Amino acid sequence: MSEWMHAPLYEGRELETPCVVIDGDVVERNIAAMAEAVARLGVKLRPHAKTHKLPEMAARQIAAGAVGITVAKISEAEVMASGGIRDIFVAYPLVSKSKLDRAARLGRSGIRLIIGVDSLEGAKRVSEAALREGAVLEVRLELETGLRRTGVSMDKAVQIARLITELPGIKLSGIFTYRGALVDGASTLDIKAAGHEEGRLMAEAATALRTAGITIQDVSVGSSPTAIYAAEIDGVTEVRPGTYIYQDRMQAAFGSSTLEQCAGAVLATIVSRPSDDLIVIDGGSKTFATDVQPGTAPLFLKGFGHVTGDPDAVLERMNEEHGMIRVAPDAVYQVGDVIRIIPNHICSTVNLHSFVYIKETDGQLRKTSVAARGMLE
Amino acid sequence: MSEWMHAPLYEGRELETPCVVIDGDVVERNIAAMAEAVARLGVKLRPHAKTHKLPEMAARQIAAGAVGITVAKISEAEVMASGGIRDIFVAYPLVSKSKLDRAARLGRSGIRLIIGVDSLEGAKRVSEAALREGAVLEVRLELETGLRRTGVSMDKAVQIARLITELPGIKLSGIFTYRGALVDGASTLDIKAAGHEEGRLMAEAATALRTAGITIQDVSVGSSPTAIYAAEIDGVTEVRPGTYIYQDRMQAAFGSSTLEQCAGAVLATIVSRPSDDLIVIDGGSKTFATDVQPGTAPLFLKGFGHVTGDPDAVLERMNEEHGMIRVAPDAVYQVGDVIRIIPNHICSTVNLHSFVYIKETDGQLRKTSVAARGMLE
Repeated sequence: MSEWMHAPLYEGRELETPCVVIDGDVVERNIAAMAEAVARLGVKLRPHAKTHKLPEMAARQIAAGAVGITVAKISEAEVMASGGIRDIFVAYPLVSKSKLDRAARLGRSGIRLIIGVDSLEGAKRVSEAALREGAVLEVRLELETGLRRTGVSMDKAVQIARLITELPGIKLSGIFTYRGALVDGASTLDIKAAGHEEGRLMAEAATALRTAGITIQDVSVGSSPTAIYAAEIDGVTEVRPGTYIYQDRMQAAFGSSTLEQCAGAVLATIVSRPSDDLIVIDGGSKTFATDVQPGTAPLFLKGFGHVTGDPDAVLERMNEEHGMIRVAPDAVYQVGDVIRIIPNHICSTVNLHSFVYIKETDGQLRKTSVAARGMLE
Repeated sequence: MSEWMHAPLYEGRELETPCVVIDGDVVERNIAAMAEAVARLGVKLRPHAKTHKLPEMAARQIAAGAVGITVAKISEAEVMASGGIRDIFVAYPLVSKSKLDRAARLGRSGIRLIIGVDSLEGAKRVSEAALREGAVLEVRLELETGLRRTGVSMDKAVQIARLITELPGIKLSGIFTYRGALVDGASTLDIKAAGHEEGRLMAEAATALRTAGITIQDVSVGSSPTAIYAAEIDGVTEVRPGTYIYQDRMQAAFGSSTLEQCAGAVLATIVSRPSDDLIVIDGGSKTFATDVQPGTAPLFLKGFGHVTGDPDAVLERMNEEHGMIRVAPDAVYQVGDVIRIIPNHICSTVNLHSFVYIKETDGQLRKTSVAARGMLE
């Protein structure tokens, strides 16, 4: 049976569902735990804002010791800068003229802005924007460590890095990668080994670059499950976990979280119980992200979320507005009951929601717009 | 090779990507084709707004002959009413007190508002809201026709309908169902047979209800692929297709659209070409919906979208901000090129985007907020 059978109150009325509720106390504990684990290893923490998309959460992370924040889009950097964040890494190869011009202007505004590059062509475009706007743009070179997406292959890193250092208007300050726990094609899961391998690959690359006379200050790696393991490797200077602030069902399956450490969940209302073994809730694929699919290797998650208090319930099918949950025939769910569901992937779930409710220490709910939601440019 | 290698201009500058562009001329043709096909069969058309989420598109559909619009949420009904739409069906079992109170207030405002019910418990809640607000709420009873989500089973329809007619403040005016082309468990695809079956089941149910003395005015069925077939069945009075206005790759796989009839597509920029056979674009699962998964029965779509002009390119993997497309090693894609991709599912893709660009007949782009995007309450 689910733990939350009545909607909590917001401004004196029952909360409208479906919606995302974030437990602020759990957030604080998650922020502190990662900050302490990373600081103990003498490594810097630059969390990825993709999970919360909120300047206020970035500020909490920085207050706990993070050196700055990571984003993927220049529009997200602009939102974070407007919210008072002063050290921002756009860990993405920006190549469009208008985006690079925006980056150059933001970089000139007095904050530290770093952007990713992963090709000589891309670096030339960065250089041109810097010259157009009269700025010097700090960049990090992205290296490919197994995920087969962006990133320069290891054997070309020295050659491309050297050509980048010769371009005007660019300051190459470091290297970065994203490898995650699920390296493409992985059928087994060993997050400790994955983190160590990521750190080792990048530390070796940094050594090769420095041997070739190229200054490499920052060696930035890591995801929520692998960050603390990658940080154990000598030569790694910074980690960029994102999901850890809220945690989710995928992280729990990785073993890098417990379900109790999941701060974010969806509240939904049962709108129908067409048969004893089926309840239908008022949230489907517009409410729960579908990018982490059930039943797929290596996590084999059952369904699209975890119904808290009822581990046997399975959110097995969704349409856009309907979630079909298989339940025990003798479970006492009724039409109108509210249940709480931890989604498989909280980052992409938050991205579906225009606002979230943050539960404060006193139990009160505070509604906030997800300021950097849906930022695509 | 893709057909659109440079970003079109918007307000004199290259369009920022990734973004959704809707071809207004194709929209007009799609609206007209469905309106004519349905009118020819003497059936009413009440399109589902879930695809466009825009009052202006609903108004175009009504101007072409639709009797009104369909939505799934009371918040969507409120957006449509604010945009001037006067006949709205919330085809969803509303059960929460606050939502039903909002429905009753909207119903009192002079428009025709119809809401769905699928249980006696739900109908009692509708009745209570109607009494609280001094309104009479028009409802339709949802019947289950094979999808195993909401809806009353056929053998209970007469019994529940009779009890509903005895409740104060409720006017039961019809029945509805959603069955779609992909009835749960279907491994083969025959949209004509699916549409006929849906129509036949509902026409029989209407007959049984009328025989029992219950007045049934509207018999409402149909999805974009099945609507014109369901409408061929005597006794069906209304169809509710949604996707047909924009069409998408899933509809093309159903055979109910061609790729040329797809009005909506994502423009994306190539940010990296890490190897000859791989390009990476600036859109992933935040840009393209993932609810229609590649490789699954019965459609077996290759990848998450169709790259126009390059049918062999496969958008085979995505992270939140990266789309990995397998291309021919000799294809001439370069970093900075813009490509156009028809998504598997346009409705849930539009739901990710805060705004879309509408391409007018003169070729100019007009930017519009997706007014009912992300409406969950």
